[in-house]
Amino acid sequence: MDPIESASAGLGAGGDVFFILMGAILVFAMHSGFAFLEVGTVRHKNQVNALVKILADFAVSTVSYFFIGYSVAYGVDFLVSAAELSGATEGSSYGPQGVDLVKFFFLLTFAAAIPAIISGGIAERARFWPQAVATAIIVGLVYPFYEGLVWNGNWGFQDWLEAAFGAPFHDFAGSIVVHAVGGWLAFAAVIMLGRRVGRYTADGKLIGFPPSSIPWLALGSWLLCIGWFGFNVVSAQSLEGISGLVAMNSVLAMAGGILAALVVGKNDPGFIHNGALAGLVAVCAGSDIMHPVGSLVVGAVAGALFVIMFDFCQRRLRIDDVLGVWPLHGLCGLWGGIAAGIFGMAELGGLGGVSFISQLIGSLAGVIYAAALGFVVYGGLKLVTGIRLTREEEHRGADLSIHSIGANPESEIPVR
Amino acid sequence: MDPIESASAGLGAGGDVFFILMGAILVFAMHSGFAFLEVGTVRHKNQVNALVKILADFAVSTVSYFFIGYSVAYGVDFLVSAAELSGATEGSSYGPQGVDLVKFFFLLTFAAAIPAIISGGIAERARFWPQAVATAIIVGLVYPFYEGLVWNGNWGFQDWLEAAFGAPFHDFAGSIVVHAVGGWLAFAAVIMLGRRVGRYTADGKLIGFPPSSIPWLALGSWLLCIGWFGFNVVSAQSLEGISGLVAMNSVLAMAGGILAALVVGKNDPGFIHNGALAGLVAVCAGSDIMHPVGSLVVGAVAGALFVIMFDFCQRRLRIDDVLGVWPLHGLCGLWGGIAAGIFGMAELGGLGGVSFISQLIGSLAGVIYAAALGFVVYGGLKLVTGIRLTREEEHRGADLSIHSIGANPESEIPVR
Amino acid sequence: MDPIESASAGLGAGGDVFFILMGAILVFAMHSGFAFLEVGTVRHKNQVNALVKILADFAVSTVSYFFIGYSVAYGVDFLVSAAELSGATEGSSYGPQGVDLVKFFFLLTFAAAIPAIISGGIAERARFWPQAVATAIIVGLVYPFYEGLVWNGNWGFQDWLEAAFGAPFHDFAGSIVVHAVGGWLAFAAVIMLGRRVGRYTADGKLIGFPPSSIPWLALGSWLLCIGWFGFNVVSAQSLEGISGLVAMNSVLAMAGGILAALVVGKNDPGFIHNGALAGLVAVCAGSDIMHPVGSLVVGAVAGALFVIMFDFCQRRLRIDDVLGVWPLHGLCGLWGGIAAGIFGMAELGGLGGVSFISQLIGSLAGVIYAAALGFVVYGGLKLVTGIRLTREEEHRGADLSIHSIGANPESEIPVR
Repeated sequence: MDPIESASAGLGAGGDVFFILMGAILVFAMHSGFAFLEVGTVRHKNQVNALVKILADFAVSTVSYFFIGYSVAYGVDFLVSAAELSGATEGSSYGPQGVDLVKFFFLLTFAAAIPAIISGGIAERARFWPQAVATAIIVGLVYPFYEGLVWNGNWGFQDWLEAAFGAPFHDFAGSIVVHAVGGWLAFAAVIMLGRRVGRYTADGKLIGFPPSSIPWLALGSWLLCIGWFGFNVVSAQSLEGISGLVAMNSVLAMAGGILAALVVGKNDPGFIHNGALAGLVAVCAGSDIMHPVGSLVVGAVAGALFVIMFDFCQRRLRIDDVLGVWPLHGLCGLWGGIAAGIFGMAELGGLGGVSFISQLIGSLAGVIYAAALGFVVYGGLKLVTGIRLTREEEHRGADLSIHSIGANPESEIPVR
Repeated sequence: MDPIESASAGLGAGGDVFFILMGAILVFAMHSGFAFLEVGTVRHKNQVNALVKILADFAVSTVSYFFIGYSVAYGVDFLVSAAELSGATEGSSYGPQGVDLVKFFFLLTFAAAIPAIISGGIAERARFWPQAVATAIIVGLVYPFYEGLVWNGNWGFQDWLEAAFGAPFHDFAGSIVVHAVGGWLAFAAVIMLGRRVGRYTADGKLIGFPPSSIPWLALGSWLLCIGWFGFNVVSAQSLEGISGLVAMNSVLAMAGGILAALVVGKNDPGFIHNGALAGLVAVCAGSDIMHPVGSLVVGAVAGALFVIMFDFCQRRLRIDDVLGVWPLHGLCGLWGGIAAGIFGMAELGGLGGVSFISQLIGSLAGVIYAAALGFVVYGGLKLVTGIRLTREEEHRGADLSIHSIGANPESEIPVR
Repeated sequence: MDPIESASAGLGAGGDVFFILMGAILVFAMHSGFAFLEVGTVRHKNQVNALVKILADFAVSTVSYFFIGYSVAYGVDFLVSAAELSGATEGSSYGPQGVDLVKFFFLLTFAAAIPAIISGGIAERARFWPQAVATAIIVGLVYPFYEGLVWNGNWGFQDWLEAAFGAPFHDFAGSIVVHAVGGWLAFAAVIMLGRRVGRYTADGKLIGFPPSSIPWLALGSWLLCIGWFGFNVVSAQSLEGISGLVAMNSVLAMAGGILAALVVGKNDPGFIHNGALAGLVAVCAGSDIMHPVGSLVVGAVAGALFVIMFDFCQRRLRIDDVLGVWPLHGLCGLWGGIAAGIFGMAELGGLGGVSFISQLIGSLAGVIYAAALGFVVYGGLKLVTGIRLTREEEHRGADLSIHSIGANPESEIPVR
């Protein structure tokens, strides 16, 4: 290699490390978004629990994904010397300047989104440590298995789809791999956990549990939206592969989600702030191949879908999914995986190279896998340790029951 | 092109996409800052409305700027195939790796700042949908016309200034194009809307409407300040043009604004947090050409100007501009446009190449244009649809009147 | 230089400016984290003061570091023309594209962290302007002296260590230079200031002053954690030097800190959110040379250390350090400086090239220097101007006493 080439290569590696780092930081910031979205949506007596769960889940995810999950998905482990990890030794299998390590950080922030999604569904009544154990199992095994299937070509799933239907399953930034998998795991967890005390009357009518704070809910939504541009655009994982199309599609899908939720949701602040997220969930899969106008439509459908299904899920199905994470991530994610097979087509202005059948199979596979494993994991824990607070603990609130302190301790303690 | 050259070019495009993306994300984050600044400054009964307005305005702006505004300013539209948009087809007029699409995202976040600025002025009493219509008109037509005049050299305005006075109008990051235009549009909107009920006594004395929450106000200010470094530095729009001078000037102007507002505003938290913004508004125009010490002075003058004019506007002029967006963006922006013609001069340590006369003409043109069009747009809407809540709705608060829910629903509903 | 080479060089400078800019923005964002961590931890009557202090300290730091501090540390000043500063003139001693100016911004955000750390210790009872003076002195002189000693090789300290013990003192991102120095300055300030009124019973028993708001505390912690990845990774200060290892080590240390604080702190939200910070404080020094598993251990030790020492400091030592900044930054920072000499060794999987003795000497030198100068600065101010609010002012709260307004003015003023 001549000097200029090697300088370019070095610069390229540094540029990629920087690029992936910023993506990881942005998606890491989304975790604070998950936390505050839950803080604002739950009742005041469960705000502290929301905060602690998200942070603890991130730490458990880090350890589980570092020691187990990343190997399951990518066949790479990190138990060699720091010199080799950094790509600084002769013949190291790791890229220069620790590029593979920053990829771990980036992909960890995706993996840890799974328990963060589930957290919103099981809020206000789940026990703390069993959920931490579920997080370790899900991030160490359940998620990485499907992640590796789709994103690392493991076990021949993608090869088979490509051979059979002309294209592999395309999920650029994880409408299915992250959101639908998280949402359907949450679906199972919510079913296993059961409804909150007092949520329905004896004859099955919904009783409103109004959110504690719209500003905190809104802050959570904003932090998620801001970080999402890292989630989507940095999924390219190299500056060579970065595309401005992903950014444009993301912002148009978000706008579509906002506007549809605004209209269908009749100006409700909870719906509009979740509508932005619905559009972003749905655009992930095809954000690199759809036309911006297609993305606007995909986002708008997702925004309306969320509002309608949130109500349907709560009122008709009587599934007590506190933040509506199954409609949001589970259903809008599923829609996104399928939509990439429609709006990604060249005939609709997209870049093409997708197969509708592959999208359908890949999407349904992810959804069924996640729901099934969700019942296994949470069902197993229910049998072994129990997963639910006692009626009395739930009534006191998760904050006092689990953390021995409320969200505003100064104003809550009796004055001496 | 030999392989190395083309690799370099690819890297350059990827680097620029990444750079502009980060700028866009940072300025997008500023919109959450606008939202929380308003949440904290308005009364509790109008917090939800602040949040929904900003998010909805962003979505309306996205659609309006995508289909209309961007063409008006730059003569570019996006209704061709995704392949062509990405610069992936032969002879595409769009740059490689979707660089033109991420530029749209970046410039959209600027355009959408206009309704976000106006929102703070018209808070607590404006109707929702008429304001959404105003946003569509302003972001689709009003703003892009002047934007294109200054930043795209449309209609010969810049050529004429350069020929006549030796230099075009220099507004690097939008003291005039964004802030003054937004602030003077808001000025007109506030006048057309009229004062809040109960804001002045019968003999014209101001009645204090204290802010609901200093922490939310401060969070808004912080989010704006953080994103502002993207607003200013990324205005270079390429890594080749990036300059550390812009970052240094921005931080010094912000410090100047903080210190002046702290002293003149007598340690008031609202003034100091807005003082930081005042300094940043004023430094935009000349941040790439002034000396850091000049920037410190420009920022300090802006901080003092804001405090003095906020009081003057409320007490003497009896303009009920809730967040003081006219003094903040309108007047400090105007000062910034003119100041670039002073502190940008080589004689004062600046980089030179500016004309004081061109700065004066460009700045005043922007201000007059915005105020005039503001009266047209809001005056027209006032005639056609009405723009103001009823007295009763205003008294109940925009939250309950428009959104049927308050900011803290759990504590506000009657206990069952 | 041939055209390709010079293009590469230009790109490199632009890339570095961008890289350092993002680091500076992220660390700047940490300052909002300091503010909200204090807002949530103090009593309601001192929330405004927390916010104003942090913002004012940042502005004072900017001016002091610009005119004095940066010269003290690096021998560079900025009182030449903007053209020369930008590296645009022939023979300029400043790098191209203002790279040295964005470095100033980055290092300013470190320097200004010192008063932000101290702020949390002296909360609820310190006078405003004497603290602003202390900030000016510390950021202009005290901090830069030690900063230059370690990071610029001034006065032969590093040369001596290298000659005597085989390696200079290694503090990659400032466990000692920033955190321990800040924490031990705070230690002195807290001692000089004395305990809050009513904090201990007559026989020395601690009286609980519960935090006002866990959500604000948590937001502060999240903002600090998010920005910290800029703090650590961008400490490389060039894309050529960037390393993914730093990011991976940071996230593992953070996870270790969270988990240890969760267990040792018995699920307390204040402890877990500070535990994340403890891990990050400790990993700074060796984040570029330790193995990820070593970082996990270093972080876990720091998390436990914080919880244990926070209680010990408050209950046994009766040091009224409100946010526990001495245990957090002072002790976990000290641990981090020493730990780099252990876990950085090649024998423990690290990159090697460190000397335990140099780490011990450098760390203790920083700690002793900071504590001593802290007593000088705050002792001097105590004599000259006084540093403490009157008993009555303290009882009313810093908000009303200093800023004439509370954190929620609308709900606090008497209804008309």
